Amino acid sequence: MTDRGTKRYAGIRAAVVGTGLIGGSVLLRLAESGLDVAGWDPDLATREQARARGVAAPDTLEQAVADRDVVFLGGPLPTLPRTLARVAAATAPGCVLTDVGSTKVEVAEAADRLGLTDRFVPGHPMAGAESAGLAAASTTLLAGAAWVLCPAPGAATAGFRWLTGLLVELFDARVVPMSAPAHDSAAALASHVPHLLAGALAGAAQRAPLRDAVLALAAGSFRDGTRVAGTPAERTANMLLGNRARVLHELADVTEFLDGLAAALRAGDAAALTARYAEAAAVRSALLDRRYAERDREFPAEGDHAAEVTWLRELGDAGGHLTGCRVDTGSVAYTAWLPVTD
Amino acid sequence: MTDRGTKRYAGIRAAVVGTGLIGGSVLLRLAESGLDVAGWDPDLATREQARARGVAAPDTLEQAVADRDVVFLGGPLPTLPRTLARVAAATAPGCVLTDVGSTKVEVAEAADRLGLTDRFVPGHPMAGAESAGLAAASTTLLAGAAWVLCPAPGAATAGFRWLTGLLVELFDARVVPMSAPAHDSAAALASHVPHLLAGALAGAAQRAPLRDAVLALAAGSFRDGTRVAGTPAERTANMLLGNRARVLHELADVTEFLDGLAAALRAGDAAALTARYAEAAAVRSALLDRRYAERDREFPAEGDHAAEVTWLRELGDAGGHLTGCRVDTGSVAYTAWLPVTD
Repeated sequence: MTDRGTKRYAGIRAAVVGTGLIGGSVLLRLAESGLDVAGWDPDLATREQARARGVAAPDTLEQAVADRDVVFLGGPLPTLPRTLARVAAATAPGCVLTDVGSTKVEVAEAADRLGLTDRFVPGHPMAGAESAGLAAASTTLLAGAAWVLCPAPGAATAGFRWLTGLLVELFDARVVPMSAPAHDSAAALASHVPHLLAGALAGAAQRAPLRDAVLALAAGSFRDGTRVAGTPAERTANMLLGNRARVLHELADVTEFLDGLAAALRAGDAAALTARYAEAAAVRSALLDRRYAERDREFPAEGDHAAEVTWLRELGDAGGHLTGCRVDTGSVAYTAWLPVTD
Repeated sequence: MTDRGTKRYAGIRAAVVGTGLIGGSVLLRLAESGLDVAGWDPDLATREQARARGVAAPDTLEQAVADRDVVFLGGPLPTLPRTLARVAAATAPGCVLTDVGSTKVEVAEAADRLGLTDRFVPGHPMAGAESAGLAAASTTLLAGAAWVLCPAPGAATAGFRWLTGLLVELFDARVVPMSAPAHDSAAALASHVPHLLAGALAGAAQRAPLRDAVLALAAGSFRDGTRVAGTPAERTANMLLGNRARVLHELADVTEFLDGLAAALRAGDAAALTARYAEAAAVRSALLDRRYAERDREFPAEGDHAAEVTWLRELGDAGGHLTGCRVDTGSVAYTAWLPVTD
C-alpha cells in the first residue's frame, strides 16, 4: 500500500464505531496512514486494546465521533441501524457515514427511514477471517480488497465520490459500485451460501459415526470446504438472517445444481456428470483468469447524477470496479475497469 | 523428508504404472530417494516427459514391471482392475502390488476376483491438486500425507507391513490402516461430497444472471468453497462413480444438515441457527487442534494375523495412524498414534 493517500486525505478526521475484526482493521489502517482517527466500541476491554495499540478510544460514542469528517460503522449487523441513528445525531450534516456490514438492504432502508440517505453510503469490504475481535484485526486485512459502495443519485453522490477516493488511496481498494439489492443478491452467492454449505459439511462430519476417520483423511477439499464453518457462529447467523430471502433464493439454485449432479451420479451417467463439472470448472477459470480493460469515464460534477449512478451500478453488475475518482472543476473522473470476456 | 529410507529400502526395485499427478509424484520421489525405479504410462508423451526428468520409462508395461519388488498402480480409476491384471501377469508372486486410487472397494474386489489378495495392498495417499498429469507431479506432493493402506489377514499382512515401512521412510507418510469399505465411507465425506458441494456452488454461480458481480465479490468463502470444482471434470466424475452408493449416502446426511440450517434461517430462528453453527465449528476445532498420543503395539510375526488386522482397522477407524513398522525375529512392532479426545 502506498502512502500517497496521506497527501490527499491528510487533513481529515475519521472515526470508527464498532471496532471488531473489520471495523478494527479500518481503524488500524487509518491510524497507520497518519489520519486523526478515533475508535469506539461498546466493549470496555476493546477500547483499552485500541489504546494499547496507540489509537484514541474515548469512553463515549459521542466523544469519538464529534467533529469528524467521516465515520465508519462496524459491529454486529443487527446493531447497525441503532448505531447509525446515534452517530448521525452526534455528527454534523457534512459528516459522511458508511458501514462495513455484510448485507446492505437492511441498513440502507434504516438510513432511508432516518432521513440519512444524503450522507450515508452503504459499504462492504469483501474480506474476513475465521477469527474475531480487535485482537485479530490488522492494518493489512483489507489491503487491496474488493469494497462495495452503494451510490445513490442526488446529494448522496458527493459522499460516494469522496469515499471512493479515500478507500482507493488508503486501502488500495477496488471499489465495486452496486445498488444495495444487487449487492445482497451477489453476496448471497459469493459469500452467504458458501457459509451454509460449509456449515452443512462440517455439521454432518461432526455427527458422522466415522468422524475421527474422516478427520484423519481430510485433505484439501474438506479443509477448504469447511473453513468458514469455523467462523463465530453468531456472526454467521446474523449475516444469513440479514439477507434471508436472497440467501434462500440463491441456495435453491445451488441445491438444484447439486440435485442434478446427484441424479447423474445415481444414474451412473458419466457423460452428464462430466458435462456438469465442466460447467462448474468454467466459473473457476473465469475467477482465476480474469483480465480487465480500463474504461474511464467523466461526468458533470453538478446535476442530479442520474446518468452517473446508472453507469456506476451497471459497472458493478458487470463485475467491474473503480480504482480512482477525482473531482475537478466542473467534472468528476472515474478510473474504471471491466472484466474482459473472451 | 529424511534420507534414512534409502538405507532400509536401498536395494529394492520399484515401478509405477500410470504416471499422472499422483503416480508421477510417487515415481519422482522414489527416483529422488535413489531407488531403482521405472515408470510406465500408456501415453507416449508422458513416457517421454518421464525420461526428460531422468527416470527410466520403457516402452511397454511388461518391461517396466519385470523383476520389480513393488509396483504402484495409478491412472484413471476405471482402468485400475485391468492394469492390476496386466501387472500381476508380468510380475513374480513375491512382488507387492498397491494402487493410489481414490476409492478402494472396487479395486479390492477386482483383486479378490483375480486371486491377488495375498500380494495386492489397496492404497490411497490423501493429497491432490487441481492440476493433472506428470507435468504437475512433484517429489513433495505426497510428503507427510495421510496414506491409507488396507490390511488383510493371512499372507497379505506381510505386504502391508513392508509397504507401511516403505511409505513412512520414503514419503514421511502417516499410514492410516482401514478396511476398503471403511475407507470408502470416510473418503465419501472427507473428499467426495466436498467435490459435489464445490461443483454445485460453482455450477450455480456459472449460471447466475449476476455471475460477473458474484466473481467481483468472491472472497475467501467462495474461492475455498469452489476450489476443487476446478479439478479435471473426468477425474472427478470417475471418483464419484467409483464410490457411488457411499457418496449418495453421505450426501444425504449433509443435505439433511443443510435443510436444518435452511429451515432455521427461513423461520428466522437465530438460536437454532447459532446452535447448528456451533456444532459445525466443533469439527473445525477437532480438525485444527488434533493432538495424538503414542500407542505402540507388537504382534507375533507369524500366524493368521487376525488380531493384528483387527487392531489396525480399529486404529484407522478411530482416526489413528502409523509412523513405523519393523519386523524383527518373531515379532512385528508398530509405532502408532491415536487422537487424544479431551
